[in-house]
Amino acid sequence: MTADTRQPIVHDKVAALAALRAAFGDRVTDNATIREQHGNTLSEVANQPPDLVVFPKSTEEVAEIVRCCRSAGAPIIPFGTGTSFEGHVNAPLGGVSIDLSRLKSIVAVHEEDLQCVVEAGVTREELNRFVRDLGLFFPIDPGADASLGGMAATRASGTNAVRYGTMKDNVLAMTVVLPDGRIARIGGRARKSAAGYDLVRLMIGSEGTLGIITELTLRLYGLPEEMAAGICAFPSVKAACDTVISTIQLGIPIARIELLDEVQVRACNAYAALELPEQPILCVEFHGSPVGVRDQIERFAEIAGDCGGSDMQWAVEPERRSALWRARHNAYWAARGLRPGAKGISTDICVPISHLAACVAETKADAAASGLIAPIVGHVGDGNFHCLPLVDMDDPTEVAIGRAFVDRLVRRALAYGGTSTGEHGIGQSNMKYLELEFDEPALDMMRAVKQALDPDNLMNPGKIVRMPASAL
Amino acid sequence: MTADTRQPIVHDKVAALAALRAAFGDRVTDNATIREQHGNTLSEVANQPPDLVVFPKSTEEVAEIVRCCRSAGAPIIPFGTGTSFEGHVNAPLGGVSIDLSRLKSIVAVHEEDLQCVVEAGVTREELNRFVRDLGLFFPIDPGADASLGGMAATRASGTNAVRYGTMKDNVLAMTVVLPDGRIARIGGRARKSAAGYDLVRLMIGSEGTLGIITELTLRLYGLPEEMAAGICAFPSVKAACDTVISTIQLGIPIARIELLDEVQVRACNAYAALELPEQPILCVEFHGSPVGVRDQIERFAEIAGDCGGSDMQWAVEPERRSALWRARHNAYWAARGLRPGAKGISTDICVPISHLAACVAETKADAAASGLIAPIVGHVGDGNFHCLPLVDMDDPTEVAIGRAFVDRLVRRALAYGGTSTGEHGIGQSNMKYLELEFDEPALDMMRAVKQALDPDNLMNPGKIVRMPASAL
Repeated sequence: MTADTRQPIVHDKVAALAALRAAFGDRVTDNATIREQHGNTLSEVANQPPDLVVFPKSTEEVAEIVRCCRSAGAPIIPFGTGTSFEGHVNAPLGGVSIDLSRLKSIVAVHEEDLQCVVEAGVTREELNRFVRDLGLFFPIDPGADASLGGMAATRASGTNAVRYGTMKDNVLAMTVVLPDGRIARIGGRARKSAAGYDLVRLMIGSEGTLGIITELTLRLYGLPEEMAAGICAFPSVKAACDTVISTIQLGIPIARIELLDEVQVRACNAYAALELPEQPILCVEFHGSPVGVRDQIERFAEIAGDCGGSDMQWAVEPERRSALWRARHNAYWAARGLRPGAKGISTDICVPISHLAACVAETKADAAASGLIAPIVGHVGDGNFHCLPLVDMDDPTEVAIGRAFVDRLVRRALAYGGTSTGEHGIGQSNMKYLELEFDEPALDMMRAVKQALDPDNLMNPGKIVRMPASAL
Repeated sequence: MTADTRQPIVHDKVAALAALRAAFGDRVTDNATIREQHGNTLSEVANQPPDLVVFPKSTEEVAEIVRCCRSAGAPIIPFGTGTSFEGHVNAPLGGVSIDLSRLKSIVAVHEEDLQCVVEAGVTREELNRFVRDLGLFFPIDPGADASLGGMAATRASGTNAVRYGTMKDNVLAMTVVLPDGRIARIGGRARKSAAGYDLVRLMIGSEGTLGIITELTLRLYGLPEEMAAGICAFPSVKAACDTVISTIQLGIPIARIELLDEVQVRACNAYAALELPEQPILCVEFHGSPVGVRDQIERFAEIAGDCGGSDMQWAVEPERRSALWRARHNAYWAARGLRPGAKGISTDICVPISHLAACVAETKADAAASGLIAPIVGHVGDGNFHCLPLVDMDDPTEVAIGRAFVDRLVRRALAYGGTSTGEHGIGQSNMKYLELEFDEPALDMMRAVKQALDPDNLMNPGKIVRMPASAL
């Protein structure tokens, strides 16, 4: 489905290897296992390993690798933790994977400004462990313990986005190695700026196709004085979605509001020996002062009750909160546990919340009609949900049914004014949907930007937008 | 200071005029007064009128004008309400001003999604009057009743940004007429998306240099149940800034927090017959539920008290709140009233808030040493402040002193990790500062994007970034 119709870029692997070996010694490898680990491994997207993997330790070393690849004509694929679902780290045209996991420095924490500066290989949990004792945290939480560089490159978000936004909203500045090997510093430490084109937002979500993010200045937040999480069960997905809409409309600053449909609840119960009610549930969390959290809880509980929700089950203690969110974060593995041996086809649509209930209901009906087990979890405060049809990838008929289901799902989202991907990114899997989502002038703007910044199409080629053959 | 060293673009004014007249009749004019009104009028930046002004009524008409200008080789300058300070609407190379004020339709309000779709000529106050009865509002408030298209094009913000963000954070989608006359629809109605390059953020703050925004999908917010505004006086700017830092660090979701220094307070008292204490003051506003607002007020008052602030003077009733913010919004005119006949040189630096107190103090000392009256107002929750040196523009010595003062101000902000412009944009005035703020690779990224999307440099030329002569 993600076939790139272009000819492979002609690159001189031998020359690239020799130059890189000379510079990086045993930090460059063509070991088959390591190469495979640096292609897609997490989802059903086929693994396409790079030719080489290099482990730089600094921005300057990344720049050196880029210059080296450039002179060999070798594609360059930045690699964080490899937790993408959409084939971002695959090397369809071969080339060099730049593994950024050794760029691990937390360069600075500016407590008064609620900011920090980190290298791209620092993961979100590493950062949070580091800043916790300062009373600070970084809220963006895509589930996986992804690298912050990778999260920026894919415009990640997750369960906290309804309150704290996505990576788009939480990166102030970056150091970027450009496709020509130069190092650019973009953005700044001021909380806002109107100085020129927004290069930071251009890089966020560019998926390694415009340059390599090696350092980031991030916003931090004070740890809330009080946090409370809870679960509420609903008679229907619609009742749960109506609760979401009212909560958002009333401006209740809810920190998390996650939907699990009854199929997903069943999966979580089985996977983690839980006893959640097997009906649609919302998992919610509130952050604030003690008075503020109490106020939010009261207002939310009233809305949920009006919509037919059950009494809330609260988890105020850190351990119970952690257990709740661990169950939510394990949803993917729990879902796969529903049908051992099958793989899930990852989906990530996002619609205006007024259409969320209808979109979920139609999707569930479609799954039933297609004979697919397809549990649903969603960041419903943003209108974003993941439906994971479980498919035996060795059965071509079933694969075709699964793919057709996903195709209808994306078209349904677009018809509702939504997007094919709320947070996973385009990668390889969603390239054909990008072409459905935007008109030709918009796609041409993307192609023009790519062509301008990476004229040789060496940066993570075969991702995001199909380039005309002449652009190779 | 803003001299463009390039040769004027050779364009066929006669041909453009004839083609436009044929298509637009009396909606195209070369009347001198109207032309002058469409150059810069609001600040000391010299007026550079366009050759022609056209008044389209639709996106399709804007596209027609662009195609017409393109075939005549005429520069194109989009015009909203002309409330920019930085020369954005000037026509240094002549050309056609496209006045978007007749694109006035509020196309849709999606209440459940807290969204609306408006044409670019709708102003923020027009939108707010329209949605008020639905219990909604659009928070971005740059003071002037600017057009929403212009606000997006300049990445405007203002007094509410500390809580609600800037235009960057509140535009979901756009219709854009591209430099080649095609119409692109970018972004979408989902609250978040990871689908491809962030073209919406690229257009926001592009100041008409990459295309013309003709329609916008905006986020709206529910009118808060309760709003309370108040004033607190401080013994020093530092005490006020310390209050700001603690408020932000504690995560109090303050809606507005504005600093006026004692010079500005004196100006406001004189201009509007007020009796504010003539010392540094913070004007604050809180939004939320009744319980939430009370909680915020108590916590803020405690912080302010700890920092040496006076008792709060509260304004809960709508009329008193309006009076307070009217005083704040009239700060520019009040400041100019301090020295009739003089003009203010507009400035807009923004620094990390940890450096705000030092930056303000040094700026005040510099003004005193330079013999300048230079009142300060600031969106201090963001670290953004405007210092307005009042200068007799007919006295070259004084102008030189004023310009040197501004130059030091900007360099001071940059040395503190800040930006030359928090919200006004680059326009003409700040082009030389953009070159101080970013390194050459970053500037080259901007040039490459501009060159890619507007290869003939017809869109608002002579703004944001100096292009190499060859790019003409």
